[in-house]
Amino acid sequence: MILQIPHKEIIERQSVFKSRLSSNGIEGCILFSTTDIFYLTNFMFRPSERPIAFFIDPQNETHLFVPSLEHSHAITYATIDHVHSYPEYPGEIHPMIVLRNILKTYKLNNTTVGLDAQGYSSPKGYNGAAITDLLEFKKSIDIKGWVEKQRYIKSENEIELIKESARWGNLAHQLLVEHSKAGSREMEIEGHATMEATQAMFKTLGEGYKPYGNPAHAFYRGQIGPHSAFPHSQNQNAELKKGFNVVSQAACDVWGYKSELERTMFIEEADSRQEQYFRYMYEAQEVAFRTIKPGVEASKIEIEVQAYFKDNGLEELSRHHTGHNMGLLNHEAPFFDLGDHTVLEPGMVFSVEPGLYIDGLGAFRHSDTIVVTESGMEMITYYPRDFESLII
Amino acid sequence: MILQIPHKEIIERQSVFKSRLSSNGIEGCILFSTTDIFYLTNFMFRPSERPIAFFIDPQNETHLFVPSLEHSHAITYATIDHVHSYPEYPGEIHPMIVLRNILKTYKLNNTTVGLDAQGYSSPKGYNGAAITDLLEFKKSIDIKGWVEKQRYIKSENEIELIKESARWGNLAHQLLVEHSKAGSREMEIEGHATMEATQAMFKTLGEGYKPYGNPAHAFYRGQIGPHSAFPHSQNQNAELKKGFNVVSQAACDVWGYKSELERTMFIEEADSRQEQYFRYMYEAQEVAFRTIKPGVEASKIEIEVQAYFKDNGLEELSRHHTGHNMGLLNHEAPFFDLGDHTVLEPGMVFSVEPGLYIDGLGAFRHSDTIVVTESGMEMITYYPRDFESLII
Repeated sequence: MILQIPHKEIIERQSVFKSRLSSNGIEGCILFSTTDIFYLTNFMFRPSERPIAFFIDPQNETHLFVPSLEHSHAITYATIDHVHSYPEYPGEIHPMIVLRNILKTYKLNNTTVGLDAQGYSSPKGYNGAAITDLLEFKKSIDIKGWVEKQRYIKSENEIELIKESARWGNLAHQLLVEHSKAGSREMEIEGHATMEATQAMFKTLGEGYKPYGNPAHAFYRGQIGPHSAFPHSQNQNAELKKGFNVVSQAACDVWGYKSELERTMFIEEADSRQEQYFRYMYEAQEVAFRTIKPGVEASKIEIEVQAYFKDNGLEELSRHHTGHNMGLLNHEAPFFDLGDHTVLEPGMVFSVEPGLYIDGLGAFRHSDTIVVTESGMEMITYYPRDFESLII
Repeated sequence: MILQIPHKEIIERQSVFKSRLSSNGIEGCILFSTTDIFYLTNFMFRPSERPIAFFIDPQNETHLFVPSLEHSHAITYATIDHVHSYPEYPGEIHPMIVLRNILKTYKLNNTTVGLDAQGYSSPKGYNGAAITDLLEFKKSIDIKGWVEKQRYIKSENEIELIKESARWGNLAHQLLVEHSKAGSREMEIEGHATMEATQAMFKTLGEGYKPYGNPAHAFYRGQIGPHSAFPHSQNQNAELKKGFNVVSQAACDVWGYKSELERTMFIEEADSRQEQYFRYMYEAQEVAFRTIKPGVEASKIEIEVQAYFKDNGLEELSRHHTGHNMGLLNHEAPFFDLGDHTVLEPGMVFSVEPGLYIDGLGAFRHSDTIVVTESGMEMITYYPRDFESLII
């Protein structure tokens, strides 16, 4: 059982990234993306008004730049050569000025430097100058998306963490189903399922388990009855009624890694119209599963699903693409989308979730998490998908 | 009882914002900030890879630009004149191209336009060109932070929602305390407190209550015993032990509005050293309360707190500023910080949370939510703050 990314793998990630920089003639870099910083350092922090940065100096040593309140936290948890800190934001001296001075000390200004952004950004009250306005570099190169691309392909350990996530998402989903009775309300069902799954999870895994996010949880997010026709609905604390179709969602963070499990279900009974839409949706998901394999473009999956919808006169009922990559974020590129021509490779982890939306009736969407393999794909989520099992 | 911002107030917000644009010679605007868009439209959505934008055309009409999957959702919930949508991201035609064409239709390119950013941004796999690279405007003016500044001063309704948030945060906190026994673990305590408070909340408030975030919840976030010395610690599922000091956090979203309640507490007993640090922290908070009033600079509160710490030889134990504004986000500007010279005005809502951190012993920090009034300040949170009440 693996519950975290080992130190060794973090070092490997740093090496891969450093090699890529080096082979592009880049001698140092500065990153502000909080997800990428966690990926490269194993240091999980709470993004706020206080800027944080990661940099690699021309001697290839790694640095974290954090607020004072994270200094000892970073030293204790991060896989990093050096930790620097500034007193506070905005502070008497702006943190970007402090960062500029540190970068000069390590001579990043004399180098060709890769930057993933002009500076830190956050909606939480942060304001600051671009680092390129504060410090003149020999040359700066935009490397936005480089670490993100490195994150596309999951390692064996990452896939294990995603599978662990799916296991506990499955439990939360099972408990959600058990608490879902006609007359009960969204929040009560979710509260019980989430608490019971979370506790079972912690008791099973013990102290080695760190969520770095939310432990096992399951919810409806307002997708109850006709309101489920809004794919990105908000919690309504709605009451389940006999004959409603509902769409669930279960997930779980394990060391920050996520999976996604969603099911279209029916409270006690479904009429023939509901069953028909369910079967179309189910078959659309099958079409996607059959199409996923290494070497094909991500867009191909969407093309096949849309062709299936069109053949059945359903194209007007589709409101979003078939799936997205995931890992440290719940949505990541690439996408099963007409405009995404990324070629699939083994180790990519996607949701598969073609949906049909009928005003007045609601949503028909399952979401499963899969990993691309050498020969096709492997299912990571395993909750029953068939119509009969989902009349609850 | 008010549980949402009324339509009329959203229209007033739009008017205030339009007047500010107009008095600066700006004839139209485009906003990408998701929080600001909610503030100006009452439309809550889940930010993802799919860009969203708000714009005002030269005829002063308001527009939302959303993905297809949000189209009917936006029409149903948003206070807006027009809703436009694009099929999907990345899509066969990039959404920014679709947006550019719509902006041209409404003649924003012939005007002086205010922009809060060059384009949409999201870590969730989004990539796109700057709108200014796609469309030539007569003139573009950076209005980043304008809506944020409008959000500094809360209306009576906003303050009522924050007080409603504090009420249910208080219940969650009380339940957290009741479940916190030596030998019990973080997640179990939090699970019970959160579920019970959430259910009481929904049963009390009924269907009018929409969290637009998380309902009542309370947690320790790893701030248990010596680990509490990391102010922004992560959940450890740690066991409470007799004599530990712990730091709690309780909160609740009401229509997206937040409050903050934190308490330093002791499991069964505290020694004289813990009591001493507690009393210093308590007095530092009192120093802040006495200093807060309209007309003083935000920095003044931090100056007074730091002076108090220095007088008592504690300055090395402080790791962050005394507080932050809050509202739709848990941290917003302005800050009680040496570098923040914003003048306080009635209606500003702040956390007050000077902290002391002792390696090996832990954290000493309360956080209370206050609102600046005409004559000084009013407490919004009301959980007991005194030493005797917090030995649990």
